[in-house]
Amino acid sequence: MRTYKLTIAYDGTAYQGWQRQANTDRTIQGILEKCISGQTGYPAEVNGSGRTDAGVHAAGQTASVVLRGIAEEGFFTGRVNGAIPEDIRIVKEELVKNGFHARKSAVGKVYEYHVDTGQKPDVFTRRYCFHFPHELDLSAMQKAAGYLTGNHDFATYTDKKDEKSTKRMIYAIIVSGQGGRVTIRYEGSGFMYHMVRILSGTLLEVGSGQRSPESVVDALRSRERQQAGFLAPAQGLFLKEVRYR
Amino acid sequence: MRTYKLTIAYDGTAYQGWQRQANTDRTIQGILEKCISGQTGYPAEVNGSGRTDAGVHAAGQTASVVLRGIAEEGFFTGRVNGAIPEDIRIVKEELVKNGFHARKSAVGKVYEYHVDTGQKPDVFTRRYCFHFPHELDLSAMQKAAGYLTGNHDFATYTDKKDEKSTKRMIYAIIVSGQGGRVTIRYEGSGFMYHMVRILSGTLLEVGSGQRSPESVVDALRSRERQQAGFLAPAQGLFLKEVRYR
Repeated sequence: MRTYKLTIAYDGTAYQGWQRQANTDRTIQGILEKCISGQTGYPAEVNGSGRTDAGVHAAGQTASVVLRGIAEEGFFTGRVNGAIPEDIRIVKEELVKNGFHARKSAVGKVYEYHVDTGQKPDVFTRRYCFHFPHELDLSAMQKAAGYLTGNHDFATYTDKKDEKSTKRMIYAIIVSGQGGRVTIRYEGSGFMYHMVRILSGTLLEVGSGQRSPESVVDALRSRERQQAGFLAPAQGLFLKEVRYR
Repeated sequence: MRTYKLTIAYDGTAYQGWQRQANTDRTIQGILEKCISGQTGYPAEVNGSGRTDAGVHAAGQTASVVLRGIAEEGFFTGRVNGAIPEDIRIVKEELVKNGFHARKSAVGKVYEYHVDTGQKPDVFTRRYCFHFPHELDLSAMQKAAGYLTGNHDFATYTDKKDEKSTKRMIYAIIVSGQGGRVTIRYEGSGFMYHMVRILSGTLLEVGSGQRSPESVVDALRSRERQQAGFLAPAQGLFLKEVRYR
């Protein structure tokens, strides 16, 4: 038995998200499992670090796969890549210690949310940005981001509260902008369902003057979803990196 | 009679090029003309600065249109944009002097050719780069680019020789690279059919060690297409800007 860690990039535009579903072939996990099982001749489970929603992209999703024996070098990055659609790429394969699990072993995640603030949506980034044609006050956004950084109960900022705990640690939220593009980068211990998209919607409301930076703290304390901002659309979100010890 | 200058961006992936064709609706010119004529109620001709091939992109194509009278402000950037596919955007409309013609009045053009040199094609740029997984010697490419800069007979570097003259002036060719991406920027008086793509293929052959920088000069003198390099694929090419006095 051999455990492999895969690093995977995908353009989520055409997919119904990471997680395998009975009623569609258009999931990343489903496509990888079907292809790998087809190559090995036995069912292989591909465990992701987490689910990404329909339309969300990944530059560095990770997954673990347990094979019955050692695979030839380049089995994933060569053979499997050759058999899957070109908008999904296994960019790295690593033989790791048995027991490694992409989700359970993860200690942190990095997401980025990309916004096109131009008057007209950029034709080249329209699949990879949320088009939000407002002049954004980046310093107000960064101020609000500062309030959200740290160890907090983020019950407000999710659409499905984790039953064990709604506390999460956010190490950093970095707001940056250049030439009609604003990027919000999130580094944290982990994020609940829709959490990054709701945080992004909230920060965009702050940036466009619809709410004050301080209001995100009141919202945090309220534990009420309706106190947070809108759910920013999936196409602006990228899972950049999953961290392990 | 009023003349408008339009600046247009398009993702060429889904199109059969700029020029209107009888046998397909998938051309940029065809789509713009159909939409504008539909709005004005009379046939309107949209004259581009030049044709772009099937699959080629534009960040700053220009076109001129003559209307029978003045249009309301935002007619093109608002009304027309609202009725055409989102991978074509009129980014700017300007009322200009009658007599302006996007092609005849142009005095220069800027193109960029984008190359993804990574081992695996980047899932997010695969529509906008040519994937050429070689380590490129940028200084050799820049040296060859220097030989091609200036006023030369470029008969070698086209697939359809201009009958009037095959001389063109290239003001600059700039080769730059960063993080698995190489960009070749061309600024010139004008370019013949396939010229930028053939120059790019030739420079990529230089960069990957398949030919010497000096060989581009011998090729230039030969006036024989087969002395030039390969035709680099359309998806890496962008028309960035058209210049006027």
